[in-house]
Amino acid sequence: MKNYFENDPWKIIERGFDPRFNKASESICSIGNGRMGQRANFEESYSGEKLQGSYLAGIYYPDKTRVGWWKVGYPEYFAKVINSVNWIGIRWVINGEELDLKNCDVSDFVRELDMKRGLLTRSFTAKLPGGEEVKVRTRRFYSMTHKDLGLIDYSLEPLNFSGKITIIPYLDFDIYNEDSNYGEQFWEGTGQRADIDRSFVQAKTKKLDFEARATMACRVFAGGDKIMESFSPADKESYVEHSLEVDAKQGQVLSIHKHVCIVSNYYYDTGDFEKVSHDQLDKSLELGFEKMLEKHFMVWEEKWKKHDIVIEGDVAAQQGIRFNIFHLNQTYTGEDPRLNIGPKGFTGEKYGGSTYWDTEAYCLPFYLSSADKKVARNLLKYRFNHLGKAIENAKKLGFSAGAALYPMVTMNGEECHNEWEITFEEIHRNAAIAYAIFDYTRYTGDEDYIVKYGLEVLIAICRFWAQRVNFSKPKQKYVMLGVTGPNEYENNINNNWYTNYAAVWCLRYTLENLEKLKKDDHSAFSKLVIKTSFDEKKETEKWRDIVENMFFPTDSERDIFLQQEGFLDKEIKPADQLPADQLPLNQNWSWDRILRSCYIKQADVLQGLYFFEHEFSKEEVERNFDYYEPITVHESSLSPCVHVIHAARLNKMNRAYELYLRTSRLDLDDYNKEVDEGLHITSMGGTWMSVVKGFGGMRVADGELHFNPKLPDHWTACKFTVLFRGRLIRVSVFRQHTEIMIIDGSTATLWLFGQKVVLEPNQQFETNNPGR
Amino acid sequence: MKNYFENDPWKIIERGFDPRFNKASESICSIGNGRMGQRANFEESYSGEKLQGSYLAGIYYPDKTRVGWWKVGYPEYFAKVINSVNWIGIRWVINGEELDLKNCDVSDFVRELDMKRGLLTRSFTAKLPGGEEVKVRTRRFYSMTHKDLGLIDYSLEPLNFSGKITIIPYLDFDIYNEDSNYGEQFWEGTGQRADIDRSFVQAKTKKLDFEARATMACRVFAGGDKIMESFSPADKESYVEHSLEVDAKQGQVLSIHKHVCIVSNYYYDTGDFEKVSHDQLDKSLELGFEKMLEKHFMVWEEKWKKHDIVIEGDVAAQQGIRFNIFHLNQTYTGEDPRLNIGPKGFTGEKYGGSTYWDTEAYCLPFYLSSADKKVARNLLKYRFNHLGKAIENAKKLGFSAGAALYPMVTMNGEECHNEWEITFEEIHRNAAIAYAIFDYTRYTGDEDYIVKYGLEVLIAICRFWAQRVNFSKPKQKYVMLGVTGPNEYENNINNNWYTNYAAVWCLRYTLENLEKLKKDDHSAFSKLVIKTSFDEKKETEKWRDIVENMFFPTDSERDIFLQQEGFLDKEIKPADQLPADQLPLNQNWSWDRILRSCYIKQADVLQGLYFFEHEFSKEEVERNFDYYEPITVHESSLSPCVHVIHAARLNKMNRAYELYLRTSRLDLDDYNKEVDEGLHITSMGGTWMSVVKGFGGMRVADGELHFNPKLPDHWTACKFTVLFRGRLIRVSVFRQHTEIMIIDGSTATLWLFGQKVVLEPNQQFETNNPGR
Repeated sequence: MKNYFENDPWKIIERGFDPRFNKASESICSIGNGRMGQRANFEESYSGEKLQGSYLAGIYYPDKTRVGWWKVGYPEYFAKVINSVNWIGIRWVINGEELDLKNCDVSDFVRELDMKRGLLTRSFTAKLPGGEEVKVRTRRFYSMTHKDLGLIDYSLEPLNFSGKITIIPYLDFDIYNEDSNYGEQFWEGTGQRADIDRSFVQAKTKKLDFEARATMACRVFAGGDKIMESFSPADKESYVEHSLEVDAKQGQVLSIHKHVCIVSNYYYDTGDFEKVSHDQLDKSLELGFEKMLEKHFMVWEEKWKKHDIVIEGDVAAQQGIRFNIFHLNQTYTGEDPRLNIGPKGFTGEKYGGSTYWDTEAYCLPFYLSSADKKVARNLLKYRFNHLGKAIENAKKLGFSAGAALYPMVTMNGEECHNEWEITFEEIHRNAAIAYAIFDYTRYTGDEDYIVKYGLEVLIAICRFWAQRVNFSKPKQKYVMLGVTGPNEYENNINNNWYTNYAAVWCLRYTLENLEKLKKDDHSAFSKLVIKTSFDEKKETEKWRDIVENMFFPTDSERDIFLQQEGFLDKEIKPADQLPADQLPLNQNWSWDRILRSCYIKQADVLQGLYFFEHEFSKEEVERNFDYYEPITVHESSLSPCVHVIHAARLNKMNRAYELYLRTSRLDLDDYNKEVDEGLHITSMGGTWMSVVKGFGGMRVADGELHFNPKLPDHWTACKFTVLFRGRLIRVSVFRQHTEIMIIDGSTATLWLFGQKVVLEPNQQFETNNPGR
Repeated sequence: MKNYFENDPWKIIERGFDPRFNKASESICSIGNGRMGQRANFEESYSGEKLQGSYLAGIYYPDKTRVGWWKVGYPEYFAKVINSVNWIGIRWVINGEELDLKNCDVSDFVRELDMKRGLLTRSFTAKLPGGEEVKVRTRRFYSMTHKDLGLIDYSLEPLNFSGKITIIPYLDFDIYNEDSNYGEQFWEGTGQRADIDRSFVQAKTKKLDFEARATMACRVFAGGDKIMESFSPADKESYVEHSLEVDAKQGQVLSIHKHVCIVSNYYYDTGDFEKVSHDQLDKSLELGFEKMLEKHFMVWEEKWKKHDIVIEGDVAAQQGIRFNIFHLNQTYTGEDPRLNIGPKGFTGEKYGGSTYWDTEAYCLPFYLSSADKKVARNLLKYRFNHLGKAIENAKKLGFSAGAALYPMVTMNGEECHNEWEITFEEIHRNAAIAYAIFDYTRYTGDEDYIVKYGLEVLIAICRFWAQRVNFSKPKQKYVMLGVTGPNEYENNINNNWYTNYAAVWCLRYTLENLEKLKKDDHSAFSKLVIKTSFDEKKETEKWRDIVENMFFPTDSERDIFLQQEGFLDKEIKPADQLPADQLPLNQNWSWDRILRSCYIKQADVLQGLYFFEHEFSKEEVERNFDYYEPITVHESSLSPCVHVIHAARLNKMNRAYELYLRTSRLDLDDYNKEVDEGLHITSMGGTWMSVVKGFGGMRVADGELHFNPKLPDHWTACKFTVLFRGRLIRVSVFRQHTEIMIIDGSTATLWLFGQKVVLEPNQQFETNNPGR
C-alpha cells in the first residue's frame, strides 16, 4: 500500500478510488474529538467492502469469552470497544436509483483528511448506471468545541440532467460489530421517534446498561438557498429517516447540512438526553455549519501550537509525524480520568479493551511533554484506582498477601485478555506501571504522587515479584520461569532478561522510596505500613535478597544480555535474508515456527536498555543493539520507535531514519498489512518519542532537561516544543546549528550537547552542532 | 465418587438414585457394539441433569473452529463425534401425569451394567406426585449379531391403582450437542413418517452429508400377552411417535418391546435405507426380544473367552479390569479399517476426533494380543492411508520435501486440534506412529507390512525430524526447540528428552530397515526410492549425523535423564504434599502456575523408558522412576498404566497396585473428576497393558514371548490369555506358582521367569514363583 496516499505536510490525500484500499483509507482518515470517533465511511450508501464504525468513549461491551480450550483463570468476558449508532448516513436516490459508488463510474475521487483543522472532505464525480452524472463534495467533523456534536455538509450537483432526487438523511442504531465472538448484536433499541424537524434513535447495550441517543436536524439548500426543512419522517425499530424529494435542476447544487448530537449515560443522565440534545442542536443550527467549523478550527490551531513538530526537507517524514500527533490528540485529551488510550483508539474494533502497558511505556512521555501534568497524573491514577482489581487478579492466579498483577487488557481494572501465554505470563506489564511512576516523578518533580498513591501500587507489585521468582538450586540464584516478554514471539520462556531486570529494578526503586519516606515523613510511612499490612523487616529482606541474587542470562563471548536462557541455541540469521513473501511472519508462519526462530517482534533487551539507559554504558547499549537489531522484524507497532532512540544516540542515522519512517508511517504505508482493521494509536506516542528522544536526544537528569539533537541526512530542519515543569521550550535543529528558546514560562537551566545553558524566557540560545 | 458403584466381579451396580451422579452413571453404564453407542440415559422422560447421547460410528461433524486468537496453521474446523437420534425414548403418561424421576419419590432404584452379557438393566419403584406407585424394569442392548439394531424391554406395573396409562415410544432426531462451538444444531431433518406399525425419522448433517435413519417397531404386552400393535402414530419435523392408551389394572405388568434399526450412509446407500431397515426389523420381530438377546449374549461369551482377565481375591480390581476390557470391546472391533478408537469412544462428546496417539501408544498392544493380526494391521494401515494428509499438514507448518506431521486429532487424516502448544508442538505423536510399526512387527513377526507400507511412513516421519532439529553452536549438538512432550503440563520447552530420544530412535530404526531392504530386496528398495524421491546419500547422511550428535538433557549428579533442559531450576516438592483441595491441579491452578511447577501430568521420561526399555538398564529405569514418580500427578488418564509396568518390574508392588487401581478404576472412581463427560476409552488399553505387561511381565524378544509375573499382595490369582503368532496362551499366576498353557495353536517356545519352556498344545507348564 506504499505511496497510496499523496505526500503533503498537513493533509492525507487519497486521489482516485481503489475499492481494495477502502477499508485502509477508512481507518487512516478517521476523525475523533476524544469523546467520539468515526471511521471515514461514506455518507451515501456503499455496497462494497467497508468496515462501518462509530465509537463512543467509555462505552464497551463484555463479550462472552471465546476460546478453544478453557483454562482456569481465564476471564468470563472480553471487553470491547464497540461500533455504535451510524449517524453519518445520507442516502441519495437519483431518478429512482440509489447513489452507490460500487455501481458507478467514479472519477476525480479525492478523500482528504485535513490534519491542521480536523476536517474530513471528499469529492468525486459519479456516473450512475442510468447515465446520470453527479458531482459530490462532502465535509465532516466532530466538533472540538461542542463535544457531543458531529456535522456533515454534503452537496451534490446534477451535471447532465434534471430530475427527481430524493435525499434521505438517517440515523441507524440497528448495527453490527465485526468483532463479536458469537455473532451477537450488542445494542438493543430503547426507542426512536421521527419528527418533521428532529428525530432520534436510542439504544442500550445488552449488558452493563450503557445507553446512547443520537438526534439529528437537517437543512437542505438548493443553489445556496435553504429550500425546506420539513422532511417526511419515517421510522422503524432503531432507525429513523427524513426523506425529501426535490426537483433537481442540471447545474444547480443541492446540499444538506446534517447536525447530529450524540449523548450517552457515560456523561449524562438518561433523563436529560432529550433536553441536552435539543439545546446543543439549537446552538449548532443557530451558528450554522460554517461558524461551527470555524470554532472547531480554532481549537486545532491552539493544539498545534503546543504539539506540532516541523520537519523540513522531507515531506513524507513531516506528514508521518503530524499524522501520529493528530490521531493521538483525537483519541485522548486527558480531560476525563476514567478514560485511557486504546490501541486502536476510535478507528476500529480489534483488540478491545482500552488499556494495555502501551499507555505507560509509550504514551505517557507524549502527554508529560505536551500537556498539563495532571493529564499524566490522571493516567497514573487510573492504575491506582484499579489496584484492588489487580490484587484480585493475582489472587485468582494463586498469589497471596496483597500481591498485584495488573491486567494485560482492561476497561475497568478487570483482566479481559484470554490467551494463557500472554494473559498469565506477560507479567512485565507490572514493571511498566511501576516505571511510569518513576518516569512521571523524574519528569515533573512531583514527589507528592509517589507518597500519596505510588508506593501502594509499588508495594503490591513487589509482592508479586517476590512470589513469582523461585530459588534455583543448580544456579544458586533466583529465577523467573515461564514468562512471555515484550517480544511476544517467544512464549513461556525462562529468565527473560527484560522481565528479570525490570523486576529487580522495581524492587530497588520501591526499597529506595520506602527508605526515603521513612526518613522524610515517618507518619506517612507508618500509615502506609498499616494500610498495606506491610511486614517491613521480612518483606524488605526478601526483596533485597532477590535484588542481590537474581539470575540474568548473558553471553560472555559477545558480552551481551541474552533475551532469555538458551537463546543462543537458535539458528541465528539476519532478518534481511527472509524472503519478502514470508513477511510479516505472523501472517505467513505457523506459531511454533515463529517461536523457535530467532526473529524478534520487538526486542525486549533493547526495551530494557531504553527504560534503564541511565544504568548502562553506551558501549553496552551498542553491543546489544548490534546483536538484536538485525534479527528484529518489528512486527509489533511498538518496536521501531525504541530502535530509533537507540540508533540516533549511537549515530546509526540511516537505520534511525529508516525505522523512523516505519514507526511514523506504519499505518500510512501499512507496513504490517492490517491497517484496514484500524490504526495503531498507542504506538503513535512512540513515534513522538522517536523524534523528541531520538533525533532530539531529550533526556531528564537531576531535574533538568538535556538535548543532543541529530538530524537525519534527509532533513534540513526539525523543530519541536516540549512542556517541562511549567515551561514551554522550543528546540529548532538545523543542519549546522541548533536553537533553543523558552517561549513560555520562567528562567531555567537546560543542557544542549552537554553544555549547560541558563535561559531567560524568550531568549534564544544557539550553538553549532558538534561533529558526529 | 469413590464407592458409588457396588463392587462386583461382572457387574456395575448403582443402587439407589443420586441425581448428582446421574451423568457419571450415564457414562459408566454406556453400551455399544462397535457401530453404535448409547449413554445410559433413561427411556422415560427425565427433566433432571443428564447428557443425552447416542453415537454412530464414523459419523462426525466439522464444527467451525472456535479460538480466541487465530494463528496461522490452525484448522478451519474441529471434527466431532456427535450426538445422534434419540432412539431410546418411551414416555409414560399415568393418569395424565408424565413419569419423570425428577418429580417422583424413587425407591429400590438399581441401574446395572452386566458386562458379561452386554446388557443394561434398570429397576425402581416410583411414586408420582398424584400418589400412583409404579414398579419399573428395563433391559436394553445393542445387538452384537445384528449391528444396526438396538432393543429395549420396558415393563411397568401399577402397584396401587388402576387407571389410564399412555405409552408413547418415540424417535427424536431434533437433538442438540452440548459440545457445539456456536450453539449450532448439526443435523437437519430429511424426512419422517409415522405409521401404525413402523415409523422412521431421517436426518443428515449440515456439512459432509452424513445421513442416518432410525426406524422403530413396538409390541406392547399386558400381563404377558401381546395386547395390540396398532398405535396412534403422530409426527412432526424430525420426530415420530406411537401412542397407545391402556386401561391399566393394578398388579398387571404392562410391557413394551421397542425394536429400533439405525442405519447410516457410512454403511448403506441412502436409497437402501428403507429396505435394509425393514428387513432387519422383520428379523428382530420374528425372533423376538428374548431370542435376540440370547444370540447377543453368545457373542459376548465368545469375546470373554479370548479377552477375560481373572483377578481373584480382590473384587474391586477384578471389576476394574473387566470394565476396561468390556468398553474397549464395545468401542472398536477392528472389523472396519476406516474406524479408530476415539478417546471417549461412544460415551460422550468431549475431545472430538477419533484418533490420537493413544491408539498407537496404548491401544495397539491390546488388539495385538487379543485379536487377529489384521485388526492391528488395520490400525497401522489407517495411518498409512493418511500419509498424504500428514505431508500436507507438515507443509502448512513450513516443512518441505515430503516431511510428514501426523495430526494430533483427526477423523479423516486432517488435523483438527487447535491449541498451538499441542497442535503444532506435540510432535512426539509422529514417533508413536513409527513405534507402532516396530511394535507390530516385533509382536507379529509380519515383516511384510514394513516393506509394503511402513517404510514410506517412516521416511516421511524421518524427514520431519531432520528438518525440525537445528544445530546449536554453543552445544555443538542438534537440538529440538519449542516442543510439548507427552507431559502436557510443560509447553514450548527445549530438548524434551522423550521427543529427542524418540526422534533419534525413529531415524535409527528407519536407517536399519532401509539397509535391510536394500540388502534383502533391491528391487523393492529401488521402487521405494523412486516413489518417495528418496535422496539416499544425502538424506541418510544427515540422519546419521543427527543420530550421532543429538543433545539429551541429563542430570549428572543424579544420573537421570532430564524431562527437558532447565528442569532442575524448578522448585521440586513431592506431589503428596499438595493439599487435597488443589487437586486435580488442572481444575484449580491457572495454567502458568502448572507450567512453572514441577508437577507432571504424565511422566514422559518414563514413557520413553517404557517404549525403549530394551535399550536401557534396569538401574537406569529405576533411578528415573524414583525421581519422576513422586512428582507425577497422573492427571492424564494415560499416565498410571505406564507407571504400573515400571513399578511391577522394579518390585515396587504397593505403588504398582495403587496405580493399577487408578488406571483400572479411573472412571469408576472418577479420579479426575470428569467422568460425567464420558469415559476414557483409550486409556483402557493402558489398563490392559498394566496387567499383562505389568503384573504379567510380558515382553517380546527375538520373536519369543517372555513372562515375569508378580502378584500384588491383595490378589490370590491373576489369569489372562494372549494371542501370539497364532497361539492362544493362557497364563495363570497364583501366590506360590504360575501355570502356563497353549490352549489353541501349535508348539512354541516361551520364557517364564527367564526360563525357556517349549510347550506343546494343551500341555500345562507350571513353576514356583521366584522370591523377589
